Amino acid sequence: MDHSLQQIELSSALSAMLVDSMGDENSILRAMLVSTDQDNLVGRQPKKSRGRLKFLIENRHGSPFEHATLTFSVHCPIFVSREWMRHRVQSFNEQSGRYVEYEPKFYWPEYRPLVQEGKPGKYQFVEGSRYQWGYAHLAFHASCQTAWDHYQEMLNQGIAKEVARMVLPVTTYTSFYATANLRNWLHFLSLRTTDDRASVPSYPLWEINQLAAQVEGALVDEFPLVMGLWNENGRVPV
Amino acid sequence: MDHSLQQIELSSALSAMLVDSMGDENSILRAMLVSTDQDNLVGRQPKKSRGRLKFLIENRHGSPFEHATLTFSVHCPIFVSREWMRHRVQSFNEQSGRYVEYEPKFYWPEYRPLVQEGKPGKYQFVEGSRYQWGYAHLAFHASCQTAWDHYQEMLNQGIAKEVARMVLPVTTYTSFYATANLRNWLHFLSLRTTDDRASVPSYPLWEINQLAAQVEGALVDEFPLVMGLWNENGRVPV
Amino acid sequence: MDHSLQQIELSSALSAMLVDSMGDENSILRAMLVSTDQDNLVGRQPKKSRGRLKFLIENRHGSPFEHATLTFSVHCPIFVSREWMRHRVQSFNEQSGRYVEYEPKFYWPEYRPLVQEGKPGKYQFVEGSRYQWGYAHLAFHASCQTAWDHYQEMLNQGIAKEVARMVLPVTTYTSFYATANLRNWLHFLSLRTTDDRASVPSYPLWEINQLAAQVEGALVDEFPLVMGLWNENGRVPV
Amino acid sequence: MDHSLQQIELSSALSAMLVDSMGDENSILRAMLVSTDQDNLVGRQPKKSRGRLKFLIENRHGSPFEHATLTFSVHCPIFVSREWMRHRVQSFNEQSGRYVEYEPKFYWPEYRPLVQEGKPGKYQFVEGSRYQWGYAHLAFHASCQTAWDHYQEMLNQGIAKEVARMVLPVTTYTSFYATANLRNWLHFLSLRTTDDRASVPSYPLWEINQLAAQVEGALVDEFPLVMGLWNENGRVPV
Repeated sequence: MDHSLQQIELSSALSAMLVDSMGDENSILRAMLVSTDQDNLVGRQPKKSRGRLKFLIENRHGSPFEHATLTFSVHCPIFVSREWMRHRVQSFNEQSGRYVEYEPKFYWPEYRPLVQEGKPGKYQFVEGSRYQWGYAHLAFHASCQTAWDHYQEMLNQGIAKEVARMVLPVTTYTSFYATANLRNWLHFLSLRTTDDRASVPSYPLWEINQLAAQVEGALVDEFPLVMGLWNENGRVPV
Repeated sequence: MDHSLQQIELSSALSAMLVDSMGDENSILRAMLVSTDQDNLVGRQPKKSRGRLKFLIENRHGSPFEHATLTFSVHCPIFVSREWMRHRVQSFNEQSGRYVEYEPKFYWPEYRPLVQEGKPGKYQFVEGSRYQWGYAHLAFHASCQTAWDHYQEMLNQGIAKEVARMVLPVTTYTSFYATANLRNWLHFLSLRTTDDRASVPSYPLWEINQLAAQVEGALVDEFPLVMGLWNENGRVPV
Repeated sequence: MDHSLQQIELSSALSAMLVDSMGDENSILRAMLVSTDQDNLVGRQPKKSRGRLKFLIENRHGSPFEHATLTFSVHCPIFVSREWMRHRVQSFNEQSGRYVEYEPKFYWPEYRPLVQEGKPGKYQFVEGSRYQWGYAHLAFHASCQTAWDHYQEMLNQGIAKEVARMVLPVTTYTSFYATANLRNWLHFLSLRTTDDRASVPSYPLWEINQLAAQVEGALVDEFPLVMGLWNENGRVPV
Repeated sequence: MDHSLQQIELSSALSAMLVDSMGDENSILRAMLVSTDQDNLVGRQPKKSRGRLKFLIENRHGSPFEHATLTFSVHCPIFVSREWMRHRVQSFNEQSGRYVEYEPKFYWPEYRPLVQEGKPGKYQFVEGSRYQWGYAHLAFHASCQTAWDHYQEMLNQGIAKEVARMVLPVTTYTSFYATANLRNWLHFLSLRTTDDRASVPSYPLWEINQLAAQVEGALVDEFPLVMGLWNENGRVPV
């Protein structure tokens, strides 16, 4: 496909969509009861669910939460994918610039605060002026369009995709699948969201926070009791 | 519960039962297509499935197999659980002798070869004589009954479960849940089964081989194309 | 070696000995400075060490602690090894009952509290009477000697080591090497020690607590600043 | 520091330098002997080293190789870092564009083949014409200079580093530390190098292959016997 005369698209979309899942709150309880209850029967509806889940979360007995797994399909810029994939207990398949030609679509920070204040490690972010916002828009557009044109022109010259893509910016959109168990997703949320209920504050990148909020929404749908208890317990990893 | 006058049970049962699963062969293909196909759509029925799975297996592109997960409920002696739990990419919850009183049930090697020949690392096992078989039966019965009686008597004396259980043999039955992704289960099978189709021979403990065969049976039901191709490729981990 | 007429030995020894290590507190700081300091030079003596380590620990930036590794040689009963090896980010090589004949040496709980009170998950342990202590001694001796005799007799009958060992109790001594990075050792200590400074209390098995204390002693020798700061921060995993 | 009028530098340097290590071939053997030799003594010089290491490699008994660890300091473009960090059993600390301003230094493919032929998954690469080489040089220079100018100008406008860096290309240089055990480094080499002795061919990115060759050089210095035997055995992961 020839994109060479194509205008690039700037977008601020960030999406993490639940694709597949295994297990529910009873799965966690059944796994717990293997450890502590000799009359455990697979398929039995556990009683006293809330109290047991609360006990697991408060005492950080995390292993039962590993028997529920969820897969998300994520669409975001490369610099976010880089941060996300530092989570080593997740499984990933990402769009490869060696095999697939990128789309002319680039993230720009339309809705996020642009200016940081304070010290490294505890940055605070503030909105930025209309001038800064407009300047960023122009800079992103010009820079991404230039990179795209050179990318396309190298492809047209017969240069390999894996070489030509080197000039594309880290704000180029990519896609990946991420699969992890519920214990790991809670760990992910504890690091990648800001929340007043958190007993240990975190300072995530704004963009990954937006995606983590979508992951959290799916977890609340699938594991409402767990998520409520986890919030009550200060969003501490189990 | 007072087991103190109870006769122990010797058993040779070994069971690994599929409890829950996520994904099928299309899940693997969809994850693969994220990497290589820019028109990938979640939920689309992938074409050319066999060829693509074959490519993944032959070239050991294992990551797409991580988006399918399976949970097994396992019932086996402690010495087998010890070997199984060396697989660190699995998730486990096991019956705890600190919290649960064991049942008076012990594995004995009724059906397995009793005598090893050859060199360490490549032992061959042969049947054993009727005398050896009978001797083992008596030795297991006497030894396990003695251990059980002391276990019970210590419990009756008010000694903690986690202390009293120390005298129980490694052939005492335990139960656990094991969750892993398909890539890890193939790795597990490559180490824990003997099979003429394997390009690298393995020398697993007889008991874990029986359980791995049950795991493999479930995988063949859930992922028939993958398992056929994996056998054709010499059962090499992906 | 023929142990068949040998009296067993009951022991209460538990040892974890530092065998090898990589890195020191400067290694942690150098790894941190890769992330935050563009003038980082390998081998430079970092300034402001205490403040930087404190920042890492308080904010749970754990990754720099992964560039220091330590190997311990551990000698303990099988039931402790089972608990220890649930730590999946460690590397292990353990004495194998398939290849090596065990020694006639068994752990008995000479120094530990024998009686538990309270509810599961938050057991309190108390000393036990002299009668209970004496009873346990007799029970351990009789039970372990019986198991040992049957083990030896089966070996004498030509039965394979991997079969005969099944009757040995979980209190039989074993040996293993455990290698992990400093981040993981801190996680290990947070779960396997009791300490008034811990902000989240843990209820470890008495025996593993003794071993973890030896691990902690070695860490204090090698990483004194880190361990002091970690205690000040409530012994929370980084 | 104000780089705003600075000319960018194009470079083709790729470096992986050994920073720290733990263990040698005797460490591997001692760990092995824990499993198989009851007279194992820490610090003893193992006999028959070559035969034992050969046995471990041929039978893929990989765990003893986990007790040796090595840390490398790597300097390479972001697109290589992305590929490298998919190795989840390694530990990383990477220069962060959120906290550190990048240098005006960009990789360009001066020495690598530019043109791919053949089918996805088994691409062959060929040199490319002088025209293609010259075109790539111009395209990289123009594209990186444009990105750099916009990056600098956004910083000058008071826009946060973590926003401004989004326009930088994936060929921007980054630095990281990577720590892993010897077993994992062998796995890394099996995927990230091309070598006629490999029984399963791999098709790594040219740039990561250059870095992996440097890693391999350090391994050959530290573990000469292991690396020789590993080559003889077809460079199969242990």
